[in-house]
Amino acid sequence: MKIRYAVIGSGALGGYYGGKLAHSGQEVHFLFHSDYHVVKNNGLRVDSAHGNFIVHPANAYSDTQNMPVCDVVLVCLKTNNNALLKEILPPLLHKNTQVILIQNGLNIEQALADNFPELSIAGGLAFICSSKTGPGFITHYDQGKLTLGGFQKTSPEILEQVIQDFKNAGVLCTLSEDLNQSRWEKLVWNIPYNGMTVVLNTTTDRLMKNPDSRSLIRSLMTEVMEASIYGGARITGDFIEKMLVYTDRMVPYAPSMKLDYDAGRPMEIEAIYSNPVRTALKAGYTMKKVEMLEQQLRFLQNYPAKVH
Amino acid sequence: MKIRYAVIGSGALGGYYGGKLAHSGQEVHFLFHSDYHVVKNNGLRVDSAHGNFIVHPANAYSDTQNMPVCDVVLVCLKTNNNALLKEILPPLLHKNTQVILIQNGLNIEQALADNFPELSIAGGLAFICSSKTGPGFITHYDQGKLTLGGFQKTSPEILEQVIQDFKNAGVLCTLSEDLNQSRWEKLVWNIPYNGMTVVLNTTTDRLMKNPDSRSLIRSLMTEVMEASIYGGARITGDFIEKMLVYTDRMVPYAPSMKLDYDAGRPMEIEAIYSNPVRTALKAGYTMKKVEMLEQQLRFLQNYPAKVH
Repeated sequence: MKIRYAVIGSGALGGYYGGKLAHSGQEVHFLFHSDYHVVKNNGLRVDSAHGNFIVHPANAYSDTQNMPVCDVVLVCLKTNNNALLKEILPPLLHKNTQVILIQNGLNIEQALADNFPELSIAGGLAFICSSKTGPGFITHYDQGKLTLGGFQKTSPEILEQVIQDFKNAGVLCTLSEDLNQSRWEKLVWNIPYNGMTVVLNTTTDRLMKNPDSRSLIRSLMTEVMEASIYGGARITGDFIEKMLVYTDRMVPYAPSMKLDYDAGRPMEIEAIYSNPVRTALKAGYTMKKVEMLEQQLRFLQNYPAKVH
Repeated sequence: MKIRYAVIGSGALGGYYGGKLAHSGQEVHFLFHSDYHVVKNNGLRVDSAHGNFIVHPANAYSDTQNMPVCDVVLVCLKTNNNALLKEILPPLLHKNTQVILIQNGLNIEQALADNFPELSIAGGLAFICSSKTGPGFITHYDQGKLTLGGFQKTSPEILEQVIQDFKNAGVLCTLSEDLNQSRWEKLVWNIPYNGMTVVLNTTTDRLMKNPDSRSLIRSLMTEVMEASIYGGARITGDFIEKMLVYTDRMVPYAPSMKLDYDAGRPMEIEAIYSNPVRTALKAGYTMKKVEMLEQQLRFLQNYPAKVH
């Protein structure tokens, strides 16, 4: 089965994963925002730790109204823009279109399902260090694993085919049997590192080397572990140790939230912090330190890095 | 009774309070560090919200070896330098000298008593907005209340006289019947505002205006309130509300810890954060958010503001 792909939000994630698929010969249609003209003229450039390439010509669009209906839509927007999906998605959908939210945070599939109760919705988690380093120019530094899992009316056959296509494109891609579990696992990394690099204006390596910040990272992870039980998942202590080792081995890194903050863009506080805090609280658990980090980030959101 | 005063550490606090006493006609001997020559030549300048003045000539010294023995020694050093007291104090002491630690934090009198078991030791708490704005130049912005309380072998008569001398000098000064209670009360303000202005690179007014940071300030105060019970004191919810109103009414302010951090000086993390956290923990209470703030500050201490 040959899948026709759409990528919504062709930045650090969408540009990389969509680019890999297109480079491997898949039919991929990219929605761009400000970078549309650059990509139309010069293609999509990906400098990757696993080998550089350019997708040129790229099927670039600035409006989903001009795009063909697609079999799989990879949503790689920042979650702060998910309210736009109500308008952006419909032109891309046929009866069996599978939408996959490759995004961070919790409860984002449910928010989409509330608006599209009949839509096939899956979720994806990217374990990747990449950023948009220029218009139509993505730099991939390290890692790249993708985990996909069904949420609502997902077709197992299509998901299996997508995983196969990614594998053929050189992307390590696995199926999650429990998307909620996978999302909580991802939070074990995102909650400490995204917020702490912003609040302490630093990078992952420095947080790991300093004994106090390292201990705080572990405490934040432990809170996510305890909250996960209240959120219908189950993180283990082993998993926390695995994440610490994974980060120790990683290149010094500024996560997406740090890049967003430094560039004066909105941070994904709602999806990554408020939703888990709220979910745990409703079930009877207070994430004290995570809530504190959330409040610090909400304060900083009002004072961009330039005047910070 | 005419008291001969010594002031150890003649900065934002010592320069102001010692200056007020000297300006009112008291005999005050000041120990200076880097500002000695400036004060010797030009006097001690205090620009105060309550009226500017200059103490000139000032009894300025660069070494306690050259100072006379005194009846009252006001220690206004940063607590990080308290280890120096073992050497600095002895030349100033006669049989009945009263030492008063006008400093922030917890357990600092006990640390001094461990080295000087026979010494008369009292503590002082300054509710003041002031800073050293130049060599031998103190600026006083707002407030100024001083609270004194006995700790070890304190003479009630001398303490009463000191309070009277401060009153005569135009300083609102009161006696605390319970120094430990007063220290915990002071922590209700210091713990949230000192650390949060550093970590979020801001001033008190902005922390109060933003609903998220305001809520976090209240949570931190509540933790101090709960910990105070384990620390042999008792803060009430009323007191927290009073401190919030007090700060709302204050001029926009960067507390001493923020000034220290911005200037690349050591912060008083040990006295203001680690000692209360440790005291509460030993008694069975974990100050989760305060501990998180402590760890964030310890991280930042290694990355001065200039490279921050």
